[in-house]
Amino acid sequence: MAEKRYLLTPGPTPVPPEVLAALAEPVIHHRARDYREIYERCLARVRDVYRTEHDVLMYTTSGTGAFESAVANLTSPGDRQLVLSAGNFGERWAGMVKAFGADLVHVRLDWGEMPEPDDLRSALVEAGDVRVVYLTHSETSTGVVCDIQALAAVAKEAGALVVVDAVSSLGAVPVETDAWELDVVVSGSQKALMCPPGLGFVSVSPAALDAASRATAARYVLDWERTRKAQAKLDAPFTPAVSLVRGLDVALGLLLDEGLETAFERHARLGRACREGAKAMGLELFSPDDDRSAVVTAIHAPDGVDATEVVSALRDRFGITIANGQAQLKGKVFRIGHIGWFDIFDITTALAAVELTLTDAGAEIERGVAVTRALDAWSEHTRV
Amino acid sequence: MAEKRYLLTPGPTPVPPEVLAALAEPVIHHRARDYREIYERCLARVRDVYRTEHDVLMYTTSGTGAFESAVANLTSPGDRQLVLSAGNFGERWAGMVKAFGADLVHVRLDWGEMPEPDDLRSALVEAGDVRVVYLTHSETSTGVVCDIQALAAVAKEAGALVVVDAVSSLGAVPVETDAWELDVVVSGSQKALMCPPGLGFVSVSPAALDAASRATAARYVLDWERTRKAQAKLDAPFTPAVSLVRGLDVALGLLLDEGLETAFERHARLGRACREGAKAMGLELFSPDDDRSAVVTAIHAPDGVDATEVVSALRDRFGITIANGQAQLKGKVFRIGHIGWFDIFDITTALAAVELTLTDAGAEIERGVAVTRALDAWSEHTRV
Repeated sequence: MAEKRYLLTPGPTPVPPEVLAALAEPVIHHRARDYREIYERCLARVRDVYRTEHDVLMYTTSGTGAFESAVANLTSPGDRQLVLSAGNFGERWAGMVKAFGADLVHVRLDWGEMPEPDDLRSALVEAGDVRVVYLTHSETSTGVVCDIQALAAVAKEAGALVVVDAVSSLGAVPVETDAWELDVVVSGSQKALMCPPGLGFVSVSPAALDAASRATAARYVLDWERTRKAQAKLDAPFTPAVSLVRGLDVALGLLLDEGLETAFERHARLGRACREGAKAMGLELFSPDDDRSAVVTAIHAPDGVDATEVVSALRDRFGITIANGQAQLKGKVFRIGHIGWFDIFDITTALAAVELTLTDAGAEIERGVAVTRALDAWSEHTRV
Repeated sequence: MAEKRYLLTPGPTPVPPEVLAALAEPVIHHRARDYREIYERCLARVRDVYRTEHDVLMYTTSGTGAFESAVANLTSPGDRQLVLSAGNFGERWAGMVKAFGADLVHVRLDWGEMPEPDDLRSALVEAGDVRVVYLTHSETSTGVVCDIQALAAVAKEAGALVVVDAVSSLGAVPVETDAWELDVVVSGSQKALMCPPGLGFVSVSPAALDAASRATAARYVLDWERTRKAQAKLDAPFTPAVSLVRGLDVALGLLLDEGLETAFERHARLGRACREGAKAMGLELFSPDDDRSAVVTAIHAPDGVDATEVVSALRDRFGITIANGQAQLKGKVFRIGHIGWFDIFDITTALAAVELTLTDAGAEIERGVAVTRALDAWSEHTRV
């Protein structure tokens, strides 16, 4: 029999069949009327998901590429800019800011640490005259989702522009672009937005656009003003990935039909169920045991077990793809994603497979305890 | 009845159903084994199409984005670089080179002019010490395909690196990356490679990589060395558009099964049929009436007729999308593409629709003459 396959990573994430079907539609020209209708609706839906009245610029690129647009459009060599990092992606943004010649202030927390407003406040005071602050809302490498509203407020108080990496958080946990005065919010198609990878987004506040008009770093495809002008007349400066835009339009329709608040609650419950299931097996969580941890659950491999082997066993024995730790966490933690097109049975599948694998490796785990506890956690919440 | 639709532009181009089906396959993780198999095969196929033993780097971006990688990786501010332009895309590359701070020598020919080796030779002598020469193989805005081998040889004689825009030529007309010593060849998925837009490619010679190691322009996602290192171990530094890579793998398989030489001959015959059909209607060609013009046929709108109206009429009345002129040629020429998944009946469809439209606009055209002459041109060649 054909092996069933399960994609349970924090990105790329599983894509609903309606979206896959849209990808297979015949290709249309990006300046033809039928594309423009899809494009217009899609841009409006992206703004709805972002909860912004400002422009959200769409690029054919990865989430990292969309983030690079922020750095390239906001940097002149020598500008003082601050990156607050506590994991792989935060450190990537620090490297990128440095590559663009900024005077980097790198507030580097340990991987998995929760960034606190006080850390940021004191760093800003110490550094002085920071023009841009880069924050990671959901650090996909560790599972930590921070209080981005509070952190952004600290940066704004200090007069800095705020750039938020919301690649894995947008659509999964609340992101209030305008209400929280986030100048720039970066996201991608392949996480909670239920689309394949290939599209990146960046919301731009008027202040961010104004700063961009003065920034001297070289950029062309990622230039905000060029894209903004084209989008305003429903054009694209360069040929966009039209098939992915078609898919995204359908995916965002599904998300908005569910309702953002309902989606946020679903994600919170999935995270809780996953954590409770993991703990019931005696495993130690790496990601925080709090309700904001709704994106990905990072779990310590038990003593004497290599996380790489857990990941391989799940793939080889059961056709299930979960994620290993990244960089310094490789082999130490494994990560179960639950953003986008996930329901409780994806969580029970992941937990059941982990149980079978660890039991075979010699762990003593009460049969079915993880799934049982996950179902409990899921149901309890329904009753509240 | 559902309207039949025909995409007859020079990009995006129609995509075969096998490729569309691959796009609709469930999303897989870019670090999982099943993806790596596809990725490895796809990279090998791209190199076969490029006819190179060197690396071809793959990016999730447009053709313009892939071109930007060449500029970003080869430029230090103040470097003397030459762009030879004769249309919209050549002028775009000049603007991009300037945006990256190079000391631009812009050899600007009229739109539609055929770039000649002597023009380039004298410009190189006059400028002196040019480090990089940017050439456009197929100028999609005008239909001109130049003798890139001869032009590249002139640039190499002068000691410059050669960067070739082969976005609309690769797979349609001969491109011999290694045999012609082309340091950098840029292409995209959505032209003769029969895939939707979203993937860009750039071949890099050892000399180009060496120059890149000294270039100081800021870049991150488009950095060649980062991508080269990752590709060498079948990894990707950033999440790639996995669905498009799946589609590309199938599309390149189709192209290589046909055989590159057969594909080149098919494209030459399609171009010839299109030109003969257009001339039979009394229309004046804008693109050259030579056998290299195998990518797109640009045709002057008849006196008193706006090309924009021809394009609109074809779309509104017949569901056919052809291309208007770009920028200064808008309204003056219309363009029929014939790269990728095209056969003779796409050409007769386009010509028949143009005939019907122009006749209704008052032109006196012998009924069926364009299709008749196109079929003749197509068949004559078979007999030779």
